[in-house]
Amino acid sequence: MKNRQIIVGLGSRSYPIIIGPDLFRSEAIVDEGDLRGRRYIVVTNDVVGPMYFSTVAERLSSPGKSVEKIIIPDGEQFKSQETLTSIYDQLITKRADRSTTIVALGGGVVGDLAGFAAATYQRGIPLIQIPTTLLAQVDSSVGGKTAINHPAGKNMIGAFYQPQAVFISLEMLGSLPDREFKAGLAEVVKYGAIMDEAFFSWLEGNIQSLLARDYEALGYAVQQCCSNKAKIVEADETESGSRALLNFGHTFGHAIEAGLGYGKWLHGEAVAAGMMLAGRLSVLAGDLKQVEWDRLQQLLIEIGLPVDAPKLGRNRYLELMGYDKKVLDGKLRLVLLRKLGEAYVTSDFSKELLVEVLSGVEQ
Amino acid sequence: MKNRQIIVGLGSRSYPIIIGPDLFRSEAIVDEGDLRGRRYIVVTNDVVGPMYFSTVAERLSSPGKSVEKIIIPDGEQFKSQETLTSIYDQLITKRADRSTTIVALGGGVVGDLAGFAAATYQRGIPLIQIPTTLLAQVDSSVGGKTAINHPAGKNMIGAFYQPQAVFISLEMLGSLPDREFKAGLAEVVKYGAIMDEAFFSWLEGNIQSLLARDYEALGYAVQQCCSNKAKIVEADETESGSRALLNFGHTFGHAIEAGLGYGKWLHGEAVAAGMMLAGRLSVLAGDLKQVEWDRLQQLLIEIGLPVDAPKLGRNRYLELMGYDKKVLDGKLRLVLLRKLGEAYVTSDFSKELLVEVLSGVEQ
Repeated sequence: MKNRQIIVGLGSRSYPIIIGPDLFRSEAIVDEGDLRGRRYIVVTNDVVGPMYFSTVAERLSSPGKSVEKIIIPDGEQFKSQETLTSIYDQLITKRADRSTTIVALGGGVVGDLAGFAAATYQRGIPLIQIPTTLLAQVDSSVGGKTAINHPAGKNMIGAFYQPQAVFISLEMLGSLPDREFKAGLAEVVKYGAIMDEAFFSWLEGNIQSLLARDYEALGYAVQQCCSNKAKIVEADETESGSRALLNFGHTFGHAIEAGLGYGKWLHGEAVAAGMMLAGRLSVLAGDLKQVEWDRLQQLLIEIGLPVDAPKLGRNRYLELMGYDKKVLDGKLRLVLLRKLGEAYVTSDFSKELLVEVLSGVEQ
Repeated sequence: MKNRQIIVGLGSRSYPIIIGPDLFRSEAIVDEGDLRGRRYIVVTNDVVGPMYFSTVAERLSSPGKSVEKIIIPDGEQFKSQETLTSIYDQLITKRADRSTTIVALGGGVVGDLAGFAAATYQRGIPLIQIPTTLLAQVDSSVGGKTAINHPAGKNMIGAFYQPQAVFISLEMLGSLPDREFKAGLAEVVKYGAIMDEAFFSWLEGNIQSLLARDYEALGYAVQQCCSNKAKIVEADETESGSRALLNFGHTFGHAIEAGLGYGKWLHGEAVAAGMMLAGRLSVLAGDLKQVEWDRLQQLLIEIGLPVDAPKLGRNRYLELMGYDKKVLDGKLRLVLLRKLGEAYVTSDFSKELLVEVLSGVEQ
């Protein structure tokens, strides 16, 4: 297969997403034009680093260029102020300046953390994203969201900061544990559900190839996701409106993650069950057809994702959702489906119907 | 005098700077159009807060709107990660969300800190700047630079984040200690020196009115500074090129501040002596005429600012300047004057001449 390229069009801050089966071992695949920097500092973790750093470093380095690394511990609990501070300290020790490029090599945690460090070190230095998980490849590495967690909530501190390029090398998915790969597919399904019915149908027909991690199927799916995400980011870079569509299933999902304790369910697993709850509300609201809800459920089941939200109790869900940062002026906003392939954001839903949906998660 | 208004033109992120003699006590002077928020959290310090919070709060509040406050300690040493963390914590406790507007009421420290909190809380929430010192009114509140200090250097962590409006009320300068007021005038002189010869001449003729804090003179001077700064920010928002002109005198100045220990000299005092050193290098380079350097010195002396840099030793200066964050790819970049009213950024200056300039500060 050939490499695929998508441009995220944001005027002077536009950048390419390059998708290929084995981007860093093939010759001349990473265009020099995208690698203008003379000094790279790769931020990676102690699991991904040993697997991919040397290959990436070899590709980045050429005469007159230097490549260094900063290693952070693996895990969501390290997406913290403490780790961020340690990255700052190492950047300072290495005397990084505004001509230094940060390369985020890893999954969502590395991308969010290294991205936020790049956004804020000396008020912003260049950033390249090399996502190594499916979740990061189709979602978190594209569009400029960076953040760290706060004891009071996920992603409470962060910035919108666009990278200079995103390099997606599919062979990196080979080492991904099955559970994590499947969790990433929840976000893939989300793009179909909220904005691309044709892609949703394609997923129904090709889910076995995806599960087998076939490069052709993966390349197509990742491209469709990134292309849909690019459209959304181009229309609403800082999430003042339509970008919130990407949060389909996420308000319920965050409640699940927080309610169970972070880490018990993977983010994608919580989003899968969250999409079913948001979908249920869409059905009760008279928008989504039951048969469409069934198709969504069927696809998630075939992937092997949870479709039943944990029974934390209705009031606990409401409480957890009330603290969600998507609450505007005290009003809860939710993403609902008009039909498969079309979503909308609303704070004008029926509270009674929400309570009815949550009666399914009573203890 | 009437209010003056300047627009900083940055496309969808454009905003007004409104300058008036007594903005918050006069009727209908703060346009409702600039105050769309329904909830304001004023960040101020324990010196400025008692003087101005109630007046500002009265002006911001109207039926259906709420105004709260967060108090931080006064002083540059509190422009730290610790204070930032305490602001985050209070925002979370108050359940601030993306529809909450942060109002920075204070000098440069408050503006930089509150601005950076606004830039990063939930990936960015609306910000209004109400600068209360001359330095903040003519420089730090305009143009979107926000930051905190790091033990290794000033403003090491920050973001470019534009406010929604800047309200400059000249009567707030009335309570400013004389030394601080004069330090602010160093930045005023800077605008004349780097880009506005006519304004420099006006300053020479009106410096006594300014020192007397005459509202007409102040209003004109603040307007000229903000208008010049707006031009620079519009041309180069993120300091990739010409915005660095604003650093005239600052690389030397930061060396002075750091070398003496921060707080010994005020920023503006260090910039004044720093401008004399950069000016001296400009004369030696064959650009600036000696008579122009004399005029710059004369104006600074009339204000009562230091024109002789402290004798920290040549090598100490070089070392301190080498760590400055304006070092690109290891090269020291300086702002020099071609003539009064015209500056340029260069890394291609003579090292020998720099050493000669610094021989004047040998111990």
